[in-house]
Amino acid sequence: MARAEIVYFSAMGHTEAISRSVRDGLASVDGVEAGLLRVDEVEGDEAWGRLDRADVIVLGSPTYMGGVAADFKRFMDQSGSRWYGRVWMDKLAAGFTVGGGLSGDKQSALQSMHVFACQHGMIWVSMGVGVREPGLDRLSSSMGLMCQAGNAPAEQTPPAEDHATAVAFGERVGRVAVRWVRGDDAES
Amino acid sequence: MARAEIVYFSAMGHTEAISRSVRDGLASVDGVEAGLLRVDEVEGDEAWGRLDRADVIVLGSPTYMGGVAADFKRFMDQSGSRWYGRVWMDKLAAGFTVGGGLSGDKQSALQSMHVFACQHGMIWVSMGVGVREPGLDRLSSSMGLMCQAGNAPAEQTPPAEDHATAVAFGERVGRVAVRWVRGDDAES
Amino acid sequence: MARAEIVYFSAMGHTEAISRSVRDGLASVDGVEAGLLRVDEVEGDEAWGRLDRADVIVLGSPTYMGGVAADFKRFMDQSGSRWYGRVWMDKLAAGFTVGGGLSGDKQSALQSMHVFACQHGMIWVSMGVGVREPGLDRLSSSMGLMCQAGNAPAEQTPPAEDHATAVAFGERVGRVAVRWVRGDDAES
Amino acid sequence: MARAEIVYFSAMGHTEAISRSVRDGLASVDGVEAGLLRVDEVEGDEAWGRLDRADVIVLGSPTYMGGVAADFKRFMDQSGSRWYGRVWMDKLAAGFTVGGGLSGDKQSALQSMHVFACQHGMIWVSMGVGVREPGLDRLSSSMGLMCQAGNAPAEQTPPAEDHATAVAFGERVGRVAVRWVRGDDAES
Repeated sequence: MARAEIVYFSAMGHTEAISRSVRDGLASVDGVEAGLLRVDEVEGDEAWGRLDRADVIVLGSPTYMGGVAADFKRFMDQSGSRWYGRVWMDKLAAGFTVGGGLSGDKQSALQSMHVFACQHGMIWVSMGVGVREPGLDRLSSSMGLMCQAGNAPAEQTPPAEDHATAVAFGERVGRVAVRWVRGDDAES
Repeated sequence: MARAEIVYFSAMGHTEAISRSVRDGLASVDGVEAGLLRVDEVEGDEAWGRLDRADVIVLGSPTYMGGVAADFKRFMDQSGSRWYGRVWMDKLAAGFTVGGGLSGDKQSALQSMHVFACQHGMIWVSMGVGVREPGLDRLSSSMGLMCQAGNAPAEQTPPAEDHATAVAFGERVGRVAVRWVRGDDAES
Repeated sequence: MARAEIVYFSAMGHTEAISRSVRDGLASVDGVEAGLLRVDEVEGDEAWGRLDRADVIVLGSPTYMGGVAADFKRFMDQSGSRWYGRVWMDKLAAGFTVGGGLSGDKQSALQSMHVFACQHGMIWVSMGVGVREPGLDRLSSSMGLMCQAGNAPAEQTPPAEDHATAVAFGERVGRVAVRWVRGDDAES
Repeated sequence: MARAEIVYFSAMGHTEAISRSVRDGLASVDGVEAGLLRVDEVEGDEAWGRLDRADVIVLGSPTYMGGVAADFKRFMDQSGSRWYGRVWMDKLAAGFTVGGGLSGDKQSALQSMHVFACQHGMIWVSMGVGVREPGLDRLSSSMGLMCQAGNAPAEQTPPAEDHATAVAFGERVGRVAVRWVRGDDAES
C-alpha cells in the first residue's frame, strides 16, 4: 500500500477544490491511500506523523506574488526538524499551484516546492501529463500541476479541464508511488 | 536625494548584522538616505509609506529550506495592495540572503526576491561586486548578496569578508539609485 | 540618446517577428535608437562593439526544452570576454521568449536570461506591462515578455495581442533606458 | 539490472573527471551498469539508443555564464524527438555541475537540468548526500551535485572532497535506480 498525503493551503477555496481532484486521482489508483491536510492542521505529533509515514507528499499552494503563500512557507520552515533528522529522505514529492493568470509566475512557486523537496532529499515526480493529450494541461506545465482560477467561486473556476488535469496528475503520481513502494517491498 | 529602505527579517541576528553593513554602504554614498525596517515593523501607514516613498527597496532574509523565511514571505504577500495599485512600479530593488552553507540554495531565495520585484514592475540591481576584486564576494554570487553564517553569535559570523562585501554591495546599490533618481529629476 | 540593441535567435520566424515589434516599441520612444542583431550576426568587432556601446541589451529566444535555444546560449557563453572585463556592467537588460504553450516553462528561459544579465553586473528591467491593462499581456508574465505561437507561419501567430504587448514592452524598456542615460548625462 | 548513462560536456577536463567519479559511485552499487557519454558522442542511433534504454540519465555540465554550457544545451534541444514521443517518460534523472566559484550560479544550471527532465516527464533524484555527513558536500547543494574547480589541471582540482562527494552522489543515485527498476520488475 502506498500512502499519499496532500498538504495544501487555500484561502479562497480554489486550491482546496483542486486538492480534492488530485486526491481523487491518487485514490483511483489501485494500492494508493490518499489523505488531505490543510497546512494549519499540520501541528502536533499526529499530523506530522502522517507525513512521516507517507510514501509521497504532494504540495499545493496558490501562487502569491510569484511564490507559495506565506502560510505554506510557514509549513515548509517548520519541517526543519524533519530536515535535520533526514526523516523524509527518499520519499516522493510532487506539487501543484493555482493562480489568476495563465503564466503568472506559477513556475516560480513550483520551483520553490522542488527546492524544498530537494532539501529533504526527496525525489520529485514531474507533471508527466498533457503532452499530446488533448483536453489536459491547457497551461503546458511540466514541473507540476498548474491551474488558473478567475474571481468566481470555486464551483465555477478553475474550469473543468483543470480539474480533469488534476485528476490525471493525481493518477500519474499514484502510479509512480505504487511502483516506488513495490521496489522497496521487493527488496525485503 | 535617493531614499533607500532595507526590509529584512532576522531570527538569530546574523541577517540583521548584514543589513546594517548594507545600510552603511548605502549611507556612505553622497545623496543617499538609508533606513532599516524589520518586516514585523512593516504595518500601518507610516511604515508602508516609507516604502512607498523609497527609490530603492533592498530585501533581506535568511535562507530557510531553500527560500526566504515565512515571515519575510508574509511581508511579500501583504504588499499585494501596492501590486494592485502599481505603487512600486519603476522603483529599484535588490536583495541579500544569509545561510549556513556555502551554496545552500541561497540562489533560490534571491530568485524569489527577484520575481517578487518583477511582479511589482521594479528594476533589479544585480550584485555587481566581487569579480576580480580580491577579498570581496567569496561565495561568487551575481543575483544579489550572499553571506554565510555559522552557529556562533552575530559578532563572530558571518566573517569580516562578508561584511565588507555587504558594505560594497550597499555602495553599488546606492550609486545606481543616485543615478536613477538623477535621471528622473533631470526630466523635470 | 539611449542606444538599445535586441539580440535574438529565431528558427521559425516567430521570435524574429516579436523582435521587430519590441524594436518598434523601443524606437517609438523619443531619444531611443534601436537595433536588431541575430545571434549568428554577433561575431567580429563591429557587432560586439555595437553591444558594448548599447545602454540596454534586450535578449530574445524561443523556449526550447524549458530554456533558451542552444544557439542563444552559444552567444551567452561567447560573451565571457565581456564578463571578464566587466564591459557590460551597469547596462540595462531585459528579455522576451516565445513558446508553443501558455506557460510551457517560459519563465525558466527568462530566468536564464536574468542570471546571465546578473553575471555581467547588468540591471534588469521587468515586464512592467499588463496589470489591469486589458488587451495586454494575456499570459500574465512579470520577469519579461512571454508570447505564445502555434504552428502557423509568423504572419498568423503569435496573435495580434502578443505583438501589441511586445510594442508596449519595448516602449517601457525604452522609457527606462532614457531615464537611465539621462541620469548619467546629468552627472557630467 | 539498472542501466545508468551519464551524459556530460567538459571543455577543460574538470567536469569529465567528476563524471568518472559519479560513474564509479554508480557502478559500485550492486545491480547497476553505468556508462559515460560525452555530448558530442550523442549522435546516431547507437548513442541515442543507449539513452533510450537507460533507467536513469545523469546530466553533467560546467556552469557557464549562470547556466549549462551551450554544447550541453545543444544536446538538450536535440532530445526534442524523444520529448515528442514521450520516450524518456518515467526514467530517473539527476544532475551535476562544476564551476569556478563557491556558489557562482551553479544552482541555476541545476535548475535548467531539472526543468529539462520535467519536460521529458522524468523523475528527479535530489542530491541526498552531505547533511550531517562531514567531509561530503562542502558546497551544501541539494538539487544535485555541485563541485568547484580552480584553474589548475583536473588532476588537482576539484579537490578530493568533491570527488568523494561525487562518488557518494553516484551511489545514492544508483541505489534509487535499483529500487525503481525493482518496482517495475515486480509488477510483471
